[in-house]
Amino acid sequence: MSALVRQFRVRTVESAKASERDDLLVAEEPLEIRIGHGPVDHRREMRLSVTMRTPGHDEELVRGFLFTEGIIVDQKELLRVVPCRSVKAEEAGNVMRAELDPAVLIDPERWQRNFYTTSSCGVCGKSSIEAVQVANDRPLRSWGPVDGTLIMGLRDRMYAAQTVFQHTGGIHAAALFNRKGELLHLREDVGRHNAVDKVIGAAAHDAAPTSDLILLVSGRAGFELVQKCVVAGIPMMVAIGAPSSLAVQLARTRGLTLIGFLRDHRFNQYAP
Amino acid sequence: MSALVRQFRVRTVESAKASERDDLLVAEEPLEIRIGHGPVDHRREMRLSVTMRTPGHDEELVRGFLFTEGIIVDQKELLRVVPCRSVKAEEAGNVMRAELDPAVLIDPERWQRNFYTTSSCGVCGKSSIEAVQVANDRPLRSWGPVDGTLIMGLRDRMYAAQTVFQHTGGIHAAALFNRKGELLHLREDVGRHNAVDKVIGAAAHDAAPTSDLILLVSGRAGFELVQKCVVAGIPMMVAIGAPSSLAVQLARTRGLTLIGFLRDHRFNQYAP
Repeated sequence: MSALVRQFRVRTVESAKASERDDLLVAEEPLEIRIGHGPVDHRREMRLSVTMRTPGHDEELVRGFLFTEGIIVDQKELLRVVPCRSVKAEEAGNVMRAELDPAVLIDPERWQRNFYTTSSCGVCGKSSIEAVQVANDRPLRSWGPVDGTLIMGLRDRMYAAQTVFQHTGGIHAAALFNRKGELLHLREDVGRHNAVDKVIGAAAHDAAPTSDLILLVSGRAGFELVQKCVVAGIPMMVAIGAPSSLAVQLARTRGLTLIGFLRDHRFNQYAP
Repeated sequence: MSALVRQFRVRTVESAKASERDDLLVAEEPLEIRIGHGPVDHRREMRLSVTMRTPGHDEELVRGFLFTEGIIVDQKELLRVVPCRSVKAEEAGNVMRAELDPAVLIDPERWQRNFYTTSSCGVCGKSSIEAVQVANDRPLRSWGPVDGTLIMGLRDRMYAAQTVFQHTGGIHAAALFNRKGELLHLREDVGRHNAVDKVIGAAAHDAAPTSDLILLVSGRAGFELVQKCVVAGIPMMVAIGAPSSLAVQLARTRGLTLIGFLRDHRFNQYAP
């Protein structure tokens, strides 16, 4: 099996029938990029970024990232990219060190000024792989048994309420439903993480607890979106698209009910 | 017209015919989030993040972001969110200030440790709106006249070479072609920005100049991806999906040839 995919057991619900089978999901793991001069000078090493990526071609990812982000302006400034060996076993292969030409200043001050914060993607910008997970030890309330008919009705209700997608075809949506499947909030945004933050921000003004909500997203369910759902205390997340491997792992660890590939008459349940 | 969309003049090529019309694109603008205590204490103000978002519901975006990122753990810790007034005219409405309860420590040290870097999205994490643009004043070489037949053949060539999407339905692809439309590099990744960084990193090992390349992406063309293309010196970008307003503006400013909604027999040209 390719390193780009992982095998998971999944429950498929089609009309009123449910069955189990093995499914392939795209692999998602954090990659930390460190930069320094030469192979051993740890005094000048800097942790530049952590990004959620599909493993493979990591040397190219680091090279392309440093170039398109303006850290290097010429490929010759990057001498080589090597996997860090002095990392914990579970991080092996997920920490890469970029060795810059000594003529290139490593200027954390400048990069911290430009890069010191995070985007709303929830993972971007965390400075170590351990920091990928937002600290949250509040238990998530279990959703309980999944009502297939209720789930299969959500998508059309969201589409009917969407306005911008019809005009542009270029926007993500996130919607919150209650236990009866009634649409409470819908937000559209060019960024999928923003759409999720907006509906969660909208629900913050409501009296009802988030433990009675379903979050529906128009696209895929990556780790960061699942994490936002868990942190907000929402017990069920439904995606029109596919989940990633790490999203399913997080959902199973935290007891989130995670559904993907929602269609009119079918969906897949990945967790719990 | 809704604030969520912007009107642009677009050239549609269908088989061998070209025509011009007005089209609606999803609005994309940077939002800077600042946090502080109360409305006036600028000494303790901190620039937390810049995210590319569709304007509207910004109070909810800030509230949801602070909550799902663990900056606040209870909504009561966020007293209010207001637009900053002491900003340049062009940033008006794009800088929001979150006023935290005085009991909540503003701890840049902690947040800088967790958030000080950027993701590969190219925008996330920049600490001021001015920093959204990667410094790059190298002129982009113009692509010249667009050969419709060549463009319409690219998509099938990428799909034929994609392996992971067929298994998982949950991955983005980026591909580089030469002037003859021959596929040079293809990379797939759970993150669309990573897929672009990977193909650009792969091309760094080639002898051919990037000014002879076409970048094709499987999804939408947002500002960050267009910026990566420009910084890499690639003169044409083609997206299967829609571009955003800011992506088109950047492409027109820099002379990038930008194509969207690529299908078997049609596409839209947004720039130059």
